[in-house]
Amino acid sequence: MKRQKKKCTILFEPSGLKIEVPVGTVLLEAARKAGIYLTSICGGDGYCGKCKVIIDRSEQFQSRPTSLLTPDEIRENVVLACQTEVLSDMTITVPKFHTLETSQILMDTDAHRFSELAGEPGAGVFEFDPLVRKFAVEMSKPTVQDNTADHERLYVAIRDRIDAPIMQTGFRILQRLSKTLVEANYKVAVTIGRRGGTTEVIEVEPGKRCKTNLAVAVDLGTTTVVAHLIDLTNAKTIDTEATYNNQINFGEDYIRRIIYAEENNAFDEMQNRIVHDVNNLIVTLASRQKVDLQDITAIICAGNTAMVHFLLNLDPTRIRKEPYIASVSFVPPIRAAEAGIQINKRGLLYCLPSVAAYVGSDIVAGVLATRIYTKKGISLFVDIGTNGEVVLGNRDWLVCASSSAGPAFEGSGVKHGMRAAAGAIEKLTILGDGSIEFKTIGDAHPAGICGSGLLDTLAELFLNAIIDRTGRFKISRDRRFTEGDDGWQFQLVPPGNEHHQIVITQADINNLIRSKAGVFAAIRVLMDSTQTKIEDIDGIYIAGGFGNFLNVKKAVTIGMLPDVPPDKIQFVGNTSIAGAKTVLMSRKALETAEQIAKSMTYFDLMSHPGYMDEFIRAKFLPHTDLSLFPSVGNVMRRA
Amino acid sequence: MKRQKKKCTILFEPSGLKIEVPVGTVLLEAARKAGIYLTSICGGDGYCGKCKVIIDRSEQFQSRPTSLLTPDEIRENVVLACQTEVLSDMTITVPKFHTLETSQILMDTDAHRFSELAGEPGAGVFEFDPLVRKFAVEMSKPTVQDNTADHERLYVAIRDRIDAPIMQTGFRILQRLSKTLVEANYKVAVTIGRRGGTTEVIEVEPGKRCKTNLAVAVDLGTTTVVAHLIDLTNAKTIDTEATYNNQINFGEDYIRRIIYAEENNAFDEMQNRIVHDVNNLIVTLASRQKVDLQDITAIICAGNTAMVHFLLNLDPTRIRKEPYIASVSFVPPIRAAEAGIQINKRGLLYCLPSVAAYVGSDIVAGVLATRIYTKKGISLFVDIGTNGEVVLGNRDWLVCASSSAGPAFEGSGVKHGMRAAAGAIEKLTILGDGSIEFKTIGDAHPAGICGSGLLDTLAELFLNAIIDRTGRFKISRDRRFTEGDDGWQFQLVPPGNEHHQIVITQADINNLIRSKAGVFAAIRVLMDSTQTKIEDIDGIYIAGGFGNFLNVKKAVTIGMLPDVPPDKIQFVGNTSIAGAKTVLMSRKALETAEQIAKSMTYFDLMSHPGYMDEFIRAKFLPHTDLSLFPSVGNVMRRA
Repeated sequence: MKRQKKKCTILFEPSGLKIEVPVGTVLLEAARKAGIYLTSICGGDGYCGKCKVIIDRSEQFQSRPTSLLTPDEIRENVVLACQTEVLSDMTITVPKFHTLETSQILMDTDAHRFSELAGEPGAGVFEFDPLVRKFAVEMSKPTVQDNTADHERLYVAIRDRIDAPIMQTGFRILQRLSKTLVEANYKVAVTIGRRGGTTEVIEVEPGKRCKTNLAVAVDLGTTTVVAHLIDLTNAKTIDTEATYNNQINFGEDYIRRIIYAEENNAFDEMQNRIVHDVNNLIVTLASRQKVDLQDITAIICAGNTAMVHFLLNLDPTRIRKEPYIASVSFVPPIRAAEAGIQINKRGLLYCLPSVAAYVGSDIVAGVLATRIYTKKGISLFVDIGTNGEVVLGNRDWLVCASSSAGPAFEGSGVKHGMRAAAGAIEKLTILGDGSIEFKTIGDAHPAGICGSGLLDTLAELFLNAIIDRTGRFKISRDRRFTEGDDGWQFQLVPPGNEHHQIVITQADINNLIRSKAGVFAAIRVLMDSTQTKIEDIDGIYIAGGFGNFLNVKKAVTIGMLPDVPPDKIQFVGNTSIAGAKTVLMSRKALETAEQIAKSMTYFDLMSHPGYMDEFIRAKFLPHTDLSLFPSVGNVMRRA
Repeated sequence: MKRQKKKCTILFEPSGLKIEVPVGTVLLEAARKAGIYLTSICGGDGYCGKCKVIIDRSEQFQSRPTSLLTPDEIRENVVLACQTEVLSDMTITVPKFHTLETSQILMDTDAHRFSELAGEPGAGVFEFDPLVRKFAVEMSKPTVQDNTADHERLYVAIRDRIDAPIMQTGFRILQRLSKTLVEANYKVAVTIGRRGGTTEVIEVEPGKRCKTNLAVAVDLGTTTVVAHLIDLTNAKTIDTEATYNNQINFGEDYIRRIIYAEENNAFDEMQNRIVHDVNNLIVTLASRQKVDLQDITAIICAGNTAMVHFLLNLDPTRIRKEPYIASVSFVPPIRAAEAGIQINKRGLLYCLPSVAAYVGSDIVAGVLATRIYTKKGISLFVDIGTNGEVVLGNRDWLVCASSSAGPAFEGSGVKHGMRAAAGAIEKLTILGDGSIEFKTIGDAHPAGICGSGLLDTLAELFLNAIIDRTGRFKISRDRRFTEGDDGWQFQLVPPGNEHHQIVITQADINNLIRSKAGVFAAIRVLMDSTQTKIEDIDGIYIAGGFGNFLNVKKAVTIGMLPDVPPDKIQFVGNTSIAGAKTVLMSRKALETAEQIAKSMTYFDLMSHPGYMDEFIRAKFLPHTDLSLFPSVGNVMRRA
């Protein structure tokens, strides 16, 4: 037997990156250290099966047995990186599906969908008055009679154009101001940014570089990060892009990530990950649209409170400890470069305000985008992400809560779950003969199931009595039932030439039911607390990255949403980014968002006496109390 | 003969600093490169004679002949560094008088005087409301019911204490805010700074570190820099210190320095010099008073426009070119560290506003300190520094102008001139028998003559007919007349055991007359332009670093000030620093200073048709037109 070496060198192909690690290092960890992104959802616990790599050459390694690899994969030397220890030098091939470049094309289709769903910002109730503007300024030249200094001359000229009682200018701009003005013959393009009550001169450039002024709006999700490239001169969305949140290796929900960061003092690492994701999105958008990063002068972010804290490296630790406190709810605008964001080096980073540790700025954005704060009647807003946040209210009052739904409807924690990208099953119906009809995004070969498809699946399995009201499989002689490593599973799509079979497991179903039960319990707590009856609800808005066409009726069927007539329910897509864009385009919208954040009353479900009961009652399909779901009762009786 | 080496090593004693320079380098330049400060006023032209050093060891060097060294000095191997070329390795002793450490003790006495002269700020018309404050804040701790984020909780607590509608907090403070609050059990010391309409949270520290809060006020003079250490909690001046402006090597007035900086792209070097001076003063004050630099949270500067531009590395080049424009007149507060100033790393740097390229914030400070902007009657304010600025006006109007007086009354450009430090002759009288009586600062051995002494000297020489009305020596058999290398000179103090003789030369007298003529011509232009008659003037305030006891009557005798009764004239010392301190102690005072700067009408003398005539007419003692100086005419007739 060979003597073990103390250090091993790993070569990652096709990038050619090499790293030296101590013997015994877990391969996933080694990849992380080498800066190579491997998809991983479970944080290295070995149950998501996403971190597959191919071992091309190795004298010695140790891989724990797993059910997540097919016999074919095992023959092809595929291993799970998180279950493999490095014992010698090795060469690894990282499959393409891990890389951002591959997923871009898929996500492009997906992310474009969001922009169609959300009403174009700037065209709405708010006056067009973007947070960052660029305009041409032509000043009179100084004379002996008019010897006003350059700085004050500039301020006069700016105030001729816009309302800006309190102005400030960065030191570096001041230092080169005179040179710029003289060289430009006092004709310049001025970029100004709104920072609360202050207007900052961000940039003064010679001549006519004022036609191009861009911004990026970002939805910082726990599982996915979405970015839109916006033209600040006309509020148009130019392009959209999405990626997985690179922090996902450190835990599937943000509570786990906070714990990981605390235990490993990895706050900087957490920030680096999410900043890296955002920068990747920006660079991808910029290069695809052939725009100069210097022309992107603003970035606006909405997201849950933890993600915003991670992005800015604010202390997130008290989010998870009673009494559950954020460091900052109203994040002041900062220079994007201060957070490591690669736009114009003097460009500003805005974050929408949040309500509480568990109701973030994405929810404020959602309330803004759906305009429920303007309506006389009561609306219910539900955002299904890794958490399920719920808002209830009208123009007089707003209450909110957060259920830790888990990312099942984002396709995470589900065996063949995936996010809404090409190949994802987005619609699924079980026909009268028991056969299954489905539609994939982009009509591609089926690769997995996204949120809307999972919702359909759960409803259809239930309506067709393949699962019972507790979600348990009613095992029959149907040959689509097989026993997998995780227990019973039901085949939704048989294997084909270009795709594997797609199944749903008992564990998947349990996860989905837990998610929907959490959301419904939160709704019930808010309704009870405000004495809102179901007939008082004028409209329900359901948001999230489900995909494009959410069958809202089926959201009622499974008991996720209250049983209101389907025409009262509207799927509104990614309202986080829609609200962020609205704010970006109007100072008044930002003020409104701040008012919304201030006025919302937060209910802490963890300390709420009724929540756990409601949750347990909601863990049935559609609910323990069928009288709450008369329309579903009717369908069941018909079945 | 030895072969010349391409590079020579110079060892400077007593510091032990070594530097290697190319053969042929001028010694003054070599010292500069080694970071050794040699006093030099003429900028290396060989006529000020201040850059004396001793050559201890050298095989070869070349020194141009000069009249500025005594035979004793030549014997002792003293050379002028600016006139000496390095041709071999050498060891140089830098005499003690070049170093700041020596001059500190002298300047201390001098600088203390300023603080006595100027009324204590904060005790005056303005409410005590310093630009930077530190106070204890105790917050209620968050609970599940009161889950306001830490940042917003802090703002609420601050707003309980002070009026601060628009607040901002630096990113770094936000990042560690939660940790600080938790560790301090929500009892913290908060430092806030006023930045225009915005209140910035500069620092949040645990516990009770709020008793110590200090600031530095600085007068940025072309020739001298004065700093006062202030207690921000009670507006008291703790200590004062002064130094020569280290830029002086690059030219005696700031126009020369701007030209030097342009020609040599030496803007950074210019900034480094003045920042180094300011830092030296701060460190000296802090170490003498045993205070921590971190407890100095603000610095406020007043000075001429060019010096403020140099300090901040703003572009000063257009100050000297028609139409004579500043980059910035109203300098926004910046972080002191951005300019390299070594106080608390988040402390703020304030500059008072200026009026024009040639009327700086020191003059605005003077108007504020003398309160002429509040008076019904017309006042005349004259500040004699390297330039002579003049302000005329009352509470309804203010006009101002700047004469390029030159630094003669600061003791520069005068053979035995020196600034107001120990040993400087500050009073001088020629008695009936022709003998001379004088008083030195600190009653030390006479070392030279400071501003007030020079003014006395000029007046006494004139009154005693030693010079005529044009300032020319009336050479007589008086043995005190000798011919020096610069032509005729008159001995004021014979040599003694502990001092050299002190003389005044024809060139000195010509410089002094040019200075006073410039100032008086400026006064005349302003009076003419506003149709102010001499009897309309209610009071004259004369400011500057003359010394302690300026004989204001003699300022009339030589025709520097209009012939008003002496009780209408007041010597007010360094009003630049007095005004700066006033502003530091009250936001309202800063607003008032801004109003003053905005409302003052600037007269450009260089383009003014009448100025040159007035100047030529004022080059007589007291003036060509004796009817303007009836009181002096009387004295002359008596003589």
